[in-house]
Amino acid sequence: MSPAVSDREIMRHFIEELERLTNKLLEMSSLVESAIYHSVTAVVQKDEALARDVIDNEVRINQMEMEIDELAISLLALQHPVAADLRLTTAALKINTDLERMGDLAVNIAERAISLIHEPVVKPMIDIPHIAALVQSMVRKSLDAFVSRDPDLARSVLASDDAVDNLRTASYHELISFMEDDPKNIRQAVDLLSVVRNLERIADHSTNIAEDVLYLAEGIDVRHHAETRG
Amino acid sequence: MSPAVSDREIMRHFIEELERLTNKLLEMSSLVESAIYHSVTAVVQKDEALARDVIDNEVRINQMEMEIDELAISLLALQHPVAADLRLTTAALKINTDLERMGDLAVNIAERAISLIHEPVVKPMIDIPHIAALVQSMVRKSLDAFVSRDPDLARSVLASDDAVDNLRTASYHELISFMEDDPKNIRQAVDLLSVVRNLERIADHSTNIAEDVLYLAEGIDVRHHAETRG
Repeated sequence: MSPAVSDREIMRHFIEELERLTNKLLEMSSLVESAIYHSVTAVVQKDEALARDVIDNEVRINQMEMEIDELAISLLALQHPVAADLRLTTAALKINTDLERMGDLAVNIAERAISLIHEPVVKPMIDIPHIAALVQSMVRKSLDAFVSRDPDLARSVLASDDAVDNLRTASYHELISFMEDDPKNIRQAVDLLSVVRNLERIADHSTNIAEDVLYLAEGIDVRHHAETRG
Repeated sequence: MSPAVSDREIMRHFIEELERLTNKLLEMSSLVESAIYHSVTAVVQKDEALARDVIDNEVRINQMEMEIDELAISLLALQHPVAADLRLTTAALKINTDLERMGDLAVNIAERAISLIHEPVVKPMIDIPHIAALVQSMVRKSLDAFVSRDPDLARSVLASDDAVDNLRTASYHELISFMEDDPKNIRQAVDLLSVVRNLERIADHSTNIAEDVLYLAEGIDVRHHAETRG
């Protein structure tokens, strides 16, 4: 085997490993998106079984986090990637952590769903599916932006984060008025506030991923420069 | 220069770089601990200037996060660490992210401090300095456990996390009763609930760090095995 073929082999193997890493992240992202969707559906439809499914499925997300970490670390150990490949691999480690945290937050929402199961359906809940749909699409877009190294898609995630913040503020005020109207609403409203906050935190994690993508794609660190988030 | 000396030189340089990385993390941890302390003091003493200091100082924590990331990535690129050194370097990347998030959470608390500035001091606040002191000590211990690779210290952080959860639940019930007593208390109590939740999330980040340390020290992945968190 000539050295040239051998180099090509090594490169091919590296590309395959990176693809495996990316595919695992996409698979994990699908689990997380589905956990978000089901946890919010459990809140809105008062479906306790669905909430328990989300809680039970967290173990799969956690297992996958550990697998992805191992994969990325062994890739660093065996392939010594440099430059763009190195940054891609360390970004995968960060994105992995963000996805696992989103899974935790979906579990928090599922726990609120169980706590809310015997409460009557209230008006302020109307905005929650809306926020949830926006947040889910942010998760999907941030991962797609990572896979396709698409800075425009990453920027659209940053723009959605502002929309989530506005919806969160509106829900917050609505829930406070709801509590002030009748103290019997307080426990329920506090649970709903928690659902909204958890969704907001999921959006923040998608934003982190989008910022990592912008850094990979353009070498600009937008993490702490709000003014460049146009 | 003999090859043996040259190897020793390389090793010495690597150890120096790792020490620089560790020292930077410790420095960042001090900034974060002080942000937590000041944000909670701003809530309790209704000190708006102190709250604004915390908000203004976030830029230093963010700057430091970027520096530490760059340092860790260049260490991976230039030194190709393997085995324990590789895991140490990837752990540093994760710990860096956890510290930066804690800084964000301290800013959230500082913002609540400003929102609470004109409210009268209420009884439920009494537990907040208690939770905050516990959380700050978790941050310090988790970083010390990382620096000294001390699994017992890391385990004590996991034990404190349970104490924080119990205090959080007690505060939560106390704040709900406080709202139910008088609707005029609702806005204030919602802000205080947010302070408690942010402290709990800081504790969660310290737990993440402690789990990383246990993995480094003992090769046991305790992240998702609650039963080993004795």
